Amino acid sequence: MIRISIDAMGGDHGPSVVMPALAKVARRRPDVNFIVFGRTDAVRPELDKFPALAAVTQFVHCDIAVRMDDKPSQALRHGRWKSSMWRAIEAVKSGDADACVSAGNTGALMAMSKFCLRTMANIERPAIAAIWPTARGESVVLDVGATIGADSHQLVDFSILGAAMARAVFGTERPSVGLLNVGVEEIKGQEEVKDAGRLLREANLASMQYHGFVEGDDIGKGVVDVVVTEGFAGNIALKTAEGTARQIAGYLREAMSRTLMARIGYMLAKGAFDRLREKMDVRKANGGVFLGLNGIVVKSHGGTDDEGFAAAIELAYDMIRNRLLDRIEADLDLFHARQPYSARPAAPENAKQ
Amino acid sequence: MIRISIDAMGGDHGPSVVMPALAKVARRRPDVNFIVFGRTDAVRPELDKFPALAAVTQFVHCDIAVRMDDKPSQALRHGRWKSSMWRAIEAVKSGDADACVSAGNTGALMAMSKFCLRTMANIERPAIAAIWPTARGESVVLDVGATIGADSHQLVDFSILGAAMARAVFGTERPSVGLLNVGVEEIKGQEEVKDAGRLLREANLASMQYHGFVEGDDIGKGVVDVVVTEGFAGNIALKTAEGTARQIAGYLREAMSRTLMARIGYMLAKGAFDRLREKMDVRKANGGVFLGLNGIVVKSHGGTDDEGFAAAIELAYDMIRNRLLDRIEADLDLFHARQPYSARPAAPENAKQ
Repeated sequence: MIRISIDAMGGDHGPSVVMPALAKVARRRPDVNFIVFGRTDAVRPELDKFPALAAVTQFVHCDIAVRMDDKPSQALRHGRWKSSMWRAIEAVKSGDADACVSAGNTGALMAMSKFCLRTMANIERPAIAAIWPTARGESVVLDVGATIGADSHQLVDFSILGAAMARAVFGTERPSVGLLNVGVEEIKGQEEVKDAGRLLREANLASMQYHGFVEGDDIGKGVVDVVVTEGFAGNIALKTAEGTARQIAGYLREAMSRTLMARIGYMLAKGAFDRLREKMDVRKANGGVFLGLNGIVVKSHGGTDDEGFAAAIELAYDMIRNRLLDRIEADLDLFHARQPYSARPAAPENAKQ
Repeated sequence: MIRISIDAMGGDHGPSVVMPALAKVARRRPDVNFIVFGRTDAVRPELDKFPALAAVTQFVHCDIAVRMDDKPSQALRHGRWKSSMWRAIEAVKSGDADACVSAGNTGALMAMSKFCLRTMANIERPAIAAIWPTARGESVVLDVGATIGADSHQLVDFSILGAAMARAVFGTERPSVGLLNVGVEEIKGQEEVKDAGRLLREANLASMQYHGFVEGDDIGKGVVDVVVTEGFAGNIALKTAEGTARQIAGYLREAMSRTLMARIGYMLAKGAFDRLREKMDVRKANGGVFLGLNGIVVKSHGGTDDEGFAAAIELAYDMIRNRLLDRIEADLDLFHARQPYSARPAAPENAKQ
């Protein structure tokens, strides 16, 4: 059985979206059990609507719910040990669950995950990885906002983490990895990015195929399976792409409703538009994966619906089934066996405890 | 008369695209004169196809053309003083032209422009500004790739430059300005971005309305008239948006040609699709503007067609007509009258000579 812990209180809609999502997943994946954390008065009525779900779910009451606008420090102060978010993460640490999914606020979820699960040995900083729909399928993009800035060693770590995730989620044996960079000659690239490229080329890892630099427009083309960058640029790239997709969808809607002819044409081509909508459906790519921690945590979009939350759970499911953490550990060991850790700058703060 | 100098040898197609573009602009703007720099054997035959254009054009032969793949240092070494690119820029310096347009390679064009025109007094670094189509119209986004990284003072400079451009190009009296940032709480923002925000808020400039931070998806929404960021994130945001737009256009094409019904629907709604295509037409927003130099230089996309190159020229035209440089100088003076220059770190390298 695969056991997933759920923070039922996260997201804009809480249990009223989370429970229908769990019910969907329970129907589609008969080998899943849930441990659900939340306030009884909020969760129970929603859970009781789905008897088949209730049969595979253990519910645990928690008084405290982290609010969507809590700062990470506030959330830690009020919610450590006892909030639904903390308890869901802790279930992964204790081994009661294989992964945790929450639609709660990203900063709080990351702060608690770091505090509770700690970063893996040899990893200085965690990253958030997104699944990015491309013209050729899907790619993994990281870091999309865990931390700002990354040195060359951290970019190499992100590459190893991202490649392991691509193998677990896409089944690609030796995923291609590109470092996000700018294309203007001579100013080409931050020093960190250049150094990371050199390190990856020299390491010539079995777990990935290092492609070289990629530019912003290469992400959507699907030029590589894994796009690696630091969290500031990655977050801006992700949100800019989402904004552009929404903008074009708006143009399209407006264009198709302006004239009678356009409306008739729209009706005739409705199947095609539905297909397009499905392609552009951000819910299917919902789920930011926290990588580099001793446990799998998936962050769902706060505003998503049940289908989107279900997609985030199924992403966690795939990663558990495909033994993501074992892969990461093996890849890190392989890399550090060649590249002695002593060659890297010390990172006392984030070292595993 | 407005006088524009043209590097006819730049871009993937050279004079065969540049001359038809000039002919279009000459037809649409009767108050424009051109000085065209290039190799006689390449330019003359194309120019002679448009007698009306030839009548308002002074042609100057240059032996050397900067190649699209020249590194900036190579371009400077081989092309300084004598290439068509250099001469076109120099025409702005000498006062023979009011602005320069080239589709040549960005790095070389920026290096030569900096070398020849120098940065303005009080400006440490130039920026490249792009016009970004949004759901509400258009915004100015800078820096999209002139340099990597920017400290808080440079971000303030970019804000002043971008606001002046928005006033010149859109006619907005007091454009709103936002600093691009990431939305994850607590890690919110690089220190430089936070400091720049504080400086802009305190300065409370008459030339702009400082809005605060914006995120990647706010660009396409048109939340502010001017989006300010450093060149690495800005370049990645711009290219990511272009890539996303192309990706969706590809989905749409594919969806509309899959079934007979979709094809019929497409034909009926063709007017709407044409409207959509026009909205998404990147050619109309063609032209990266180099800001912060003692002269206006516009970089056209290398791969654009004559309509795109014409758009870049017309952008230069608008900025000249609306006295962009005077506005920038006045705004900088106003800002520095309150904020003594001595409060800023010295920048010996880039100081005006």
